Amino acid sequence: MAATSFADRLAAAIDRVGSPACVGLDPVLEKLPAEIRASVAASDHTAVARAFVTFSRGVIDACRGRIGVIKPQAACFERYGAPGVQALHDVIHAGHNAGMIVVLDAKRGDIGISAEHYAAAAFAGASPADSLTVSGYLGPDTIEPYLKHAGRGLFVLVRTSNPGSDAVQSLRLADGRTVAEMMADHVATIGAPRMGACGLSDVGAVVAATKPADAAALRARMPNQVFLIPGYGAQGGTADDLRGLVRGKRENDRPSSSGLLVTASRSVIYAFKDGEARWADAVAAAAAGFAAEVAGIVG
Amino acid sequence: MAATSFADRLAAAIDRVGSPACVGLDPVLEKLPAEIRASVAASDHTAVARAFVTFSRGVIDACRGRIGVIKPQAACFERYGAPGVQALHDVIHAGHNAGMIVVLDAKRGDIGISAEHYAAAAFAGASPADSLTVSGYLGPDTIEPYLKHAGRGLFVLVRTSNPGSDAVQSLRLADGRTVAEMMADHVATIGAPRMGACGLSDVGAVVAATKPADAAALRARMPNQVFLIPGYGAQGGTADDLRGLVRGKRENDRPSSSGLLVTASRSVIYAFKDGEARWADAVAAAAAGFAAEVAGIVG
Repeated sequence: MAATSFADRLAAAIDRVGSPACVGLDPVLEKLPAEIRASVAASDHTAVARAFVTFSRGVIDACRGRIGVIKPQAACFERYGAPGVQALHDVIHAGHNAGMIVVLDAKRGDIGISAEHYAAAAFAGASPADSLTVSGYLGPDTIEPYLKHAGRGLFVLVRTSNPGSDAVQSLRLADGRTVAEMMADHVATIGAPRMGACGLSDVGAVVAATKPADAAALRARMPNQVFLIPGYGAQGGTADDLRGLVRGKRENDRPSSSGLLVTASRSVIYAFKDGEARWADAVAAAAAGFAAEVAGIVG
Repeated sequence: MAATSFADRLAAAIDRVGSPACVGLDPVLEKLPAEIRASVAASDHTAVARAFVTFSRGVIDACRGRIGVIKPQAACFERYGAPGVQALHDVIHAGHNAGMIVVLDAKRGDIGISAEHYAAAAFAGASPADSLTVSGYLGPDTIEPYLKHAGRGLFVLVRTSNPGSDAVQSLRLADGRTVAEMMADHVATIGAPRMGACGLSDVGAVVAATKPADAAALRARMPNQVFLIPGYGAQGGTADDLRGLVRGKRENDRPSSSGLLVTASRSVIYAFKDGEARWADAVAAAAAGFAAEVAGIVG
């Protein structure tokens, strides 16, 4: 399976559910449904990890058929040490069992042999992810090791929405490009020889939609990249902002042709009220609403 | 203990052994001593993790009294999943038991709440590291969450030695600075209010010594930062290159006053010949030689 291009597998998952919506799995103990977090002490990492798996499986079940892509946040799991990492693997496995594409949001970045180890951790273990978020600050050569794993994809950090991001990514180079645009050009170059049959590259980019003009300029430089858009509804970015990032219309357009992968986390996975017994129903409704909203944006 | 400034604890550890030398723990199964790797299958993550702990403990014992700082490479451990992460924690614990400062080389970088989770993973678990390597591409605000852990330190990626690093870090901004110099200025600003009594900041920088002119320009912008110099002997950088990065001489100079922390990994931890029974003796000799060499450079 993994030998098929990541972009093609991603496109198939998106088109199967009819929406390029992605649900971020960012479990935090104090926000879990009451029945799951009950009697779990934060200091008991094994118990927290077990609760994360129970919750994530519930979210995945609630999203089944509505959402084609999940994005577990590695940091949430790693803070609970080895049991947390085991839980992360269990969640990746559960996502695959539900027929979903899994983007591991771990934002790794190191040189040479260390990048190879991180790539193996993400793509060659018992529960390999389909794609990984990575940082390119150390240079384009540090992205290549991940691409030795056939059929796996990447999302390179290009433009984020946090207040301090401008102080690095918006700075202008002597050649007129911003730092983010420079990174975008690297991504386009690395991604060019890794095109799927769907017309999208296995190498995508993390691009926040909160600065529409900046993001549109990045789209011009990365016409074949899937834009992983973080934090829809939380980190900002309106439907109109996203419409401006859809790739140029083509024949037989499908939701995947938009080249967007729009992520929401908290607004979906914590859609229930505290103490609500049928919490999974609330998550299912939020997932359906989110998927429909994103489908409408790219449709 | 951790409430004391990281910089002061680092300086004490360096001055106790008389050298700002740091040994990188980058365990790789096929390079382990024959007696340790014997009958360990790469697919058996628990067995590999156990072998890494045995080896790392042996290296730490061999370095005791000679080396004050170790730097485990997270990627090497993480590729073996949850057992690997447990092994990493065991190695951090062993380093502390030997009185060493532990720099966790994990190169994390994420925004807001995710950075808080990574900080908790590094600094608030059962085996907290003393310091962590981080990426600043997402902006200076993404560095702050790690600094909420009193007495813990950071090394921010500024300049690396890999061939592709120039394609990002050497680019010139419209204001005349390089991208690396821009990052250095952020590091100096973030580090300014976090000064130890020793005159060094808790916020240091990863700076490769392979481009001496570039590195000297970075020293001018970061006079109070400890420079974590990677890969001495492997990634290049000569003694003369390093001498140019020592901070201006002050009264009562000690090895820590140099503001350098010079790392070697493979040349020390794999100093034995394949099949050599007394492999730890070879590591001890290499560690002593490395420490003396670095002491000579900064002395």
